[in-house]
Amino acid sequence: METNQSQRKNHMKTVGIVVEYNPLHNGHTYHFTEAKKQTASDAVVAVMSGHFLQRGEPAIVNKWARAEMALHMGVDLVLEIPFVYATQNAEQFAFGSIATLHATGIVDEVCFGSESGDIAWIEKLAAVLAEEPLAFQEALHKGLAQGWSYPAAYGAAIQALFPSPAADALQDYAAEPNNILGLNYCLALHRLQSPMRPTTIKRQKAGYHQETVTDQHIASATALRKLIVDHANDGLHTIRPYVPPSTFEILQAEKTAGRFPLTWERFYPYLQHQLLTRWPGELTAIHEMNEGIEHRILQALPRSTSFDDLVETVKTKRYTWARIQRLLLYSMLNLTRSKMAAINVKQGPAYIRVLGFNRTGQHLLKRMKKTSSLPVITRIAKDKHPMLMLDVQAGALYALGLPETLRQNEMQREYWQPPLHLDHA
Amino acid sequence: METNQSQRKNHMKTVGIVVEYNPLHNGHTYHFTEAKKQTASDAVVAVMSGHFLQRGEPAIVNKWARAEMALHMGVDLVLEIPFVYATQNAEQFAFGSIATLHATGIVDEVCFGSESGDIAWIEKLAAVLAEEPLAFQEALHKGLAQGWSYPAAYGAAIQALFPSPAADALQDYAAEPNNILGLNYCLALHRLQSPMRPTTIKRQKAGYHQETVTDQHIASATALRKLIVDHANDGLHTIRPYVPPSTFEILQAEKTAGRFPLTWERFYPYLQHQLLTRWPGELTAIHEMNEGIEHRILQALPRSTSFDDLVETVKTKRYTWARIQRLLLYSMLNLTRSKMAAINVKQGPAYIRVLGFNRTGQHLLKRMKKTSSLPVITRIAKDKHPMLMLDVQAGALYALGLPETLRQNEMQREYWQPPLHLDHA
Repeated sequence: METNQSQRKNHMKTVGIVVEYNPLHNGHTYHFTEAKKQTASDAVVAVMSGHFLQRGEPAIVNKWARAEMALHMGVDLVLEIPFVYATQNAEQFAFGSIATLHATGIVDEVCFGSESGDIAWIEKLAAVLAEEPLAFQEALHKGLAQGWSYPAAYGAAIQALFPSPAADALQDYAAEPNNILGLNYCLALHRLQSPMRPTTIKRQKAGYHQETVTDQHIASATALRKLIVDHANDGLHTIRPYVPPSTFEILQAEKTAGRFPLTWERFYPYLQHQLLTRWPGELTAIHEMNEGIEHRILQALPRSTSFDDLVETVKTKRYTWARIQRLLLYSMLNLTRSKMAAINVKQGPAYIRVLGFNRTGQHLLKRMKKTSSLPVITRIAKDKHPMLMLDVQAGALYALGLPETLRQNEMQREYWQPPLHLDHA
Repeated sequence: METNQSQRKNHMKTVGIVVEYNPLHNGHTYHFTEAKKQTASDAVVAVMSGHFLQRGEPAIVNKWARAEMALHMGVDLVLEIPFVYATQNAEQFAFGSIATLHATGIVDEVCFGSESGDIAWIEKLAAVLAEEPLAFQEALHKGLAQGWSYPAAYGAAIQALFPSPAADALQDYAAEPNNILGLNYCLALHRLQSPMRPTTIKRQKAGYHQETVTDQHIASATALRKLIVDHANDGLHTIRPYVPPSTFEILQAEKTAGRFPLTWERFYPYLQHQLLTRWPGELTAIHEMNEGIEHRILQALPRSTSFDDLVETVKTKRYTWARIQRLLLYSMLNLTRSKMAAINVKQGPAYIRVLGFNRTGQHLLKRMKKTSSLPVITRIAKDKHPMLMLDVQAGALYALGLPETLRQNEMQREYWQPPLHLDHA
């Protein structure tokens, strides 16, 4: 990126993006490039999930490798979304992400991908929902009481707010995962009364969950992970057309080091251990373990031969794959309601954790010293906020999924790993 | 064993023994034979630890294999000491073991090995200690307050009760682990006002903890386990001279099946997981986690490359290897103080669990239907006493130490495994 001295001295227009990069691929590069171009920004700040993701699963490669991919693509500053937001439902995920960008005090616009590509619709919806209208709440509860999944009930509740035919369009709209996230980003901006302006880019080619590769250069992260896992023994050449060369090299290096790929199956013994040593009733202390779903889990456990098998058995229309994965992740990390209460997620993030930066990012960090409303963390201290302790414990847990010889070192990485510094911008 | 019809119809004199058989060796055969001969008994009932042992470690081979060894040697009935007694200090271990034998209502004598071989001394001591003399309590607390280990403080407290030179002999006496166990067996008999008569056999050749083999046919279980682990890759021939042929065959079969040998190291990842996902203060909820020892454990954890390394680092004069192993076992099983309170160990065992029997044992079980003061369990039901639930959870935990392909089946073994029935007596 070219940035001249005068821009640095004066205002550097900055766009914020919310990412998982699991792994970073050509579709992400497209969004990154468009976001910067369309907002005419000088710098890009990404808030990124750590080792565990919104759908309640471990990232296929660790957060340091993913932050490195982001920096190589051109992101100037990578910040970590705290575990306690990164692994929650869309609303909490969006709130934690946007609140982190907001707290930096240096982000002018937020740019996200969506299926609709229509910011007017999203803002209109967000403005209505921000008022928490009674009709919406009632329709939502009614849908949930009927055993619908949360997204289905949410879509129907949105439909209830508007006259047909707008309503029909809205229900379709709400069925798309990135539209829902986008809506929640805008809601979070409302809630925070943030001056950051939202903008969206229509997603190209590959759908979010699309499992097959349909374009010569664009594939969804889901499709790429499937390629990676299905071809775990034959090297990475199958994904080469769909990722930037830097991503490819980083994945190669992580694979050689034995740190990639990681899936839930690597953690299944730990999950079994946690579930098998709990007494009846103990599981109800786990965050979001409601409505007797723990009985379904414990009943399915002895019959399940793998993690995927377990989720498949427990899954219902209402308890989606992602929701069950999150519950199992909370169980594995022993994340209880009382810990969540102590962390107080409603108040927003307690810190801004820096994962990496380039030269421009370094300037942004310097500015943040004056503008940030939260402590900016580049080194983990011994005494730390419970929210940060959870990130550290998630780091240790992720290390336990690695081959035994790597665990000892990786388990401590939260303490010894300084933020990545890419010096080519 | 030859037992004629008239004996079966009339009273069958029965001796009880308390065992771990980790693994069963020629020294155990000696004790078994002598116990039967010296007490002129027709039948032998053994109460045996399950998958986890008094020193807080996993048995080198599972309880079913060890029960089979016992039956092949000639034990008529094998009962399981509940986890909650089997993995405690000498006093609780002895109480649970003796209370189980007592509850059968069919055991006439209890015969244990000791370094002294002198039942008069042991009984005399037990009679004095049963009164819980104030001088003893005070001396014990004083010793502990000075940072002595429990056995050392215990020995000194016993010394305080008697005039020299008897006292000197007693302190030496109390330094021997089997003497201490024997004393606690007799104390338990007092406490239960049991009609069972104690008797002891002087232990031969190999000391309890002796690590090297000093005799052509007798080696301690500790020495045998060392041979097994040190020669894990070259087969079992090194232990052949020291174990009965039946034990050798059973160990061979368990090894072929991939179920043997098991050590703490196999469980280290699970322990790490439990410790690394606990918040400060959470560990103090674990049974017997006192005096800030949890801080020592958590500090040592990141620097420890193995389970043995961890225990070595945490160990102090006061916190012996066994005591730390027990604390780590309780942590791994998430055995909290509140669970212990719910189980109420002071009341004694809640059931008698049958692991195996021969034809004579079958007759003993028949008699126990009339004499036992506790339910006799041969099948695990879904709803069960918390004490029994802990045995089942310990079974699942033990299975997690096995190779992945065996876990699913072994994890459920508590439910599908009927008591062993050896039909050659």
